Amino acid sequence: MISKNQVKYIRQLEQKKYRKREGLFVAEGTKVVGDLLKHHQPKALYATDEWQAHTGISCTTVTEEELQRISFQQHPQQVMGLFPIPSQTAVISFSGTLVLALDGVQDPGNLGTIIRIADWFGIATIVCSEDTADAWNPKVIQATMGSIARVNIVYTNLLDTIDALPPDYPIYGTLLDGENIYTQPLSAEGLIIMGNEGNGISEAVRAKVNRRLLIPDFHQGETADSLNVAIATAITCSEFRRRQA
Amino acid sequence: MISKNQVKYIRQLEQKKYRKREGLFVAEGTKVVGDLLKHHQPKALYATDEWQAHTGISCTTVTEEELQRISFQQHPQQVMGLFPIPSQTAVISFSGTLVLALDGVQDPGNLGTIIRIADWFGIATIVCSEDTADAWNPKVIQATMGSIARVNIVYTNLLDTIDALPPDYPIYGTLLDGENIYTQPLSAEGLIIMGNEGNGISEAVRAKVNRRLLIPDFHQGETADSLNVAIATAITCSEFRRRQA
Repeated sequence: MISKNQVKYIRQLEQKKYRKREGLFVAEGTKVVGDLLKHHQPKALYATDEWQAHTGISCTTVTEEELQRISFQQHPQQVMGLFPIPSQTAVISFSGTLVLALDGVQDPGNLGTIIRIADWFGIATIVCSEDTADAWNPKVIQATMGSIARVNIVYTNLLDTIDALPPDYPIYGTLLDGENIYTQPLSAEGLIIMGNEGNGISEAVRAKVNRRLLIPDFHQGETADSLNVAIATAITCSEFRRRQA
Repeated sequence: MISKNQVKYIRQLEQKKYRKREGLFVAEGTKVVGDLLKHHQPKALYATDEWQAHTGISCTTVTEEELQRISFQQHPQQVMGLFPIPSQTAVISFSGTLVLALDGVQDPGNLGTIIRIADWFGIATIVCSEDTADAWNPKVIQATMGSIARVNIVYTNLLDTIDALPPDYPIYGTLLDGENIYTQPLSAEGLIIMGNEGNGISEAVRAKVNRRLLIPDFHQGETADSLNVAIATAITCSEFRRRQA
């Protein structure tokens, strides 16, 4: 059973200002909620009898109709959880590891896909500029397919973050005038910066890149088009990991 | 000026059966239409005065309001074209080249992104199973960002297509029990099969794969999740092209 006030409370969490105020985000479906429950303690959990019987987890029981009323999905799937947004003050470990940085990625689908890619390639932390889309937007959470449970997302001032790194720390960016990623040395430690869908890496951040990379195209004769930022992230992470395999 | 009947005619082209009957697809926006016009003759072209003045191309003039009425986009961009769906009987060249095959890809966004990836990596032809999403769906066309102009898409029976190839022709597929793609030999000629979002490559087609590949994950300790099919396509094509670079 779920009250009108609860419905209103949950639906407000679609908006960033309410998520921020409450410190909570919404996750839905057996896969995403299931992955989150392995690592995160929910603030509230609403599920059908079927889900509770199947998982052995007891929580607030909702009917399919009630789930439809609180859900942000067209086809809600048995369970919704409210989870605390992880602390944004954690110390990020840059030493001996690869960290992904997003400079103004705007599309929630792209952001969700990038979080999924980071998870696949064992990149534990994504540092996001303050103008990057909000990772706790329900659209992003669902697009991560559960990877949000395993990747740390930290919003920060990218310039300050970079300035706090050791002076010779590798800062990678894919740029039109970069060097062929397939033949450049790629280290096991470094920050890999991916930029905005339309404008790429911002000018100020670009000036901090000390290892300029290029994903070469294989067009024959015609002007090259761009790659989607999630696709470019996948190719870049794949190439870094290949070197260490 | 555009008549009520024209509006109705164009809007019907959102549906596959009308596209098939008329042999036409809809493309919108300066980038997508601009790329198509370099290679394809439009059946009809509707554009604002501004677009016509900018490009020097004369066509049916529409106001912003008229464009809004015929458009499939939330924010129409100056121009819409109706283009003939390319012939599906063309002979596909398999010799000495890489060809992409899609076996039941369902999501229009994924299909559009895959066409864009093929274009980037210089793969001229994509062979689609008959249950793959329709490439001339307006959502796919827009997601290709103009790459639809440069990549041949052919719908066919994949099994028949594979059976008609020379017996030792390389048929690649990414499978859970495949061999590490980063260390396997990859040829400059071959068919690369990508499967359905949920089920992967269908059983009958899987049986035809003679080079089984795996994109290894770099998770530490936890069950690996899947990669989105467009992401897997990007990583696979990147790795094939790297070997030939």
